[in-house]
Amino acid sequence: MAFQLDEAVAILERTPRVLRALLEGLPEAWINCTEGEGTWSPFDVVGHLCDGEETDWIPRTRIVLEHGDARAFEPYDRFRHLGVDHGRTIGARLDRFEALRAESLKTLKAFELAASDLGRRGLHPELGSVTLEQLLATWAAHDLDHLFQISRTLAKRYREDAGPWIAYLRVLRS
Amino acid sequence: MAFQLDEAVAILERTPRVLRALLEGLPEAWINCTEGEGTWSPFDVVGHLCDGEETDWIPRTRIVLEHGDARAFEPYDRFRHLGVDHGRTIGARLDRFEALRAESLKTLKAFELAASDLGRRGLHPELGSVTLEQLLATWAAHDLDHLFQISRTLAKRYREDAGPWIAYLRVLRS
Repeated sequence: MAFQLDEAVAILERTPRVLRALLEGLPEAWINCTEGEGTWSPFDVVGHLCDGEETDWIPRTRIVLEHGDARAFEPYDRFRHLGVDHGRTIGARLDRFEALRAESLKTLKAFELAASDLGRRGLHPELGSVTLEQLLATWAAHDLDHLFQISRTLAKRYREDAGPWIAYLRVLRS
Repeated sequence: MAFQLDEAVAILERTPRVLRALLEGLPEAWINCTEGEGTWSPFDVVGHLCDGEETDWIPRTRIVLEHGDARAFEPYDRFRHLGVDHGRTIGARLDRFEALRAESLKTLKAFELAASDLGRRGLHPELGSVTLEQLLATWAAHDLDHLFQISRTLAKRYREDAGPWIAYLRVLRS
């Protein structure tokens, strides 16, 4: 186990800047590309990350702190971003995600979590009993999962174009 | 086939900024983590990307333009970065990669490639006949492959810490 709250925050605070560095001003062909029917473009992913700030990470942390495992988390809607207006352009979505994440981290800091709080338990509607530490580790890993997804989605746009080099690029075969 | 030179350059010019946004100032525990014995840390990957600028992408483009497929590319040494001093700190490596990449893109621009140049052929020592377009598409996809790798390497540090959420995070199962 590797979790340290300050190290998790170091990932969480960087993600808006990483996504901006990667996506802002990038040609639309990249922003809107997907891995095929039913998969998400980088534009979709940034909307999904906004959803997480609004309905998942801090709201669930608050439930753990206020109710422990006496009250289950609200189920998470993976498709909420398809119906919520998180911004019509990638620039607007990046701005929104950055503002939401900054607010989340401000709230997290205000909780003044001690090491002893990390073992506090919550109740996930599908996964059952979880700890606050698992929730916070998942928040950081979830950011990285979506950076992983965006990198893969972008790379696969050149799957055919790379010709025989596909043999050396793992991302193109994934 | 999706390749457009300006779109590939849009990826290539962003990579140093993306890696800086992700890695600069990040705790050493993240910078030096790996996926296990024989795999690369984010610190190693940035060194490998420096190697590419010095020995792969532009040098091979030059061989195609000057010799076509009459002269094979030099074999690429995937482990060169372990013996070359690309900087002792992640900050120094990021600076070095940024400078090398800027120089590469300046050189690429100076080649003034026309669409008709993209079909010119080169000879890869293992893969055989390749086109300039395939080489340039691979350059961009290779950046994304390593961003994919870094995201995965960082995320897997929380493989155990995320507890039951591993079921929802693809990157942790990869």
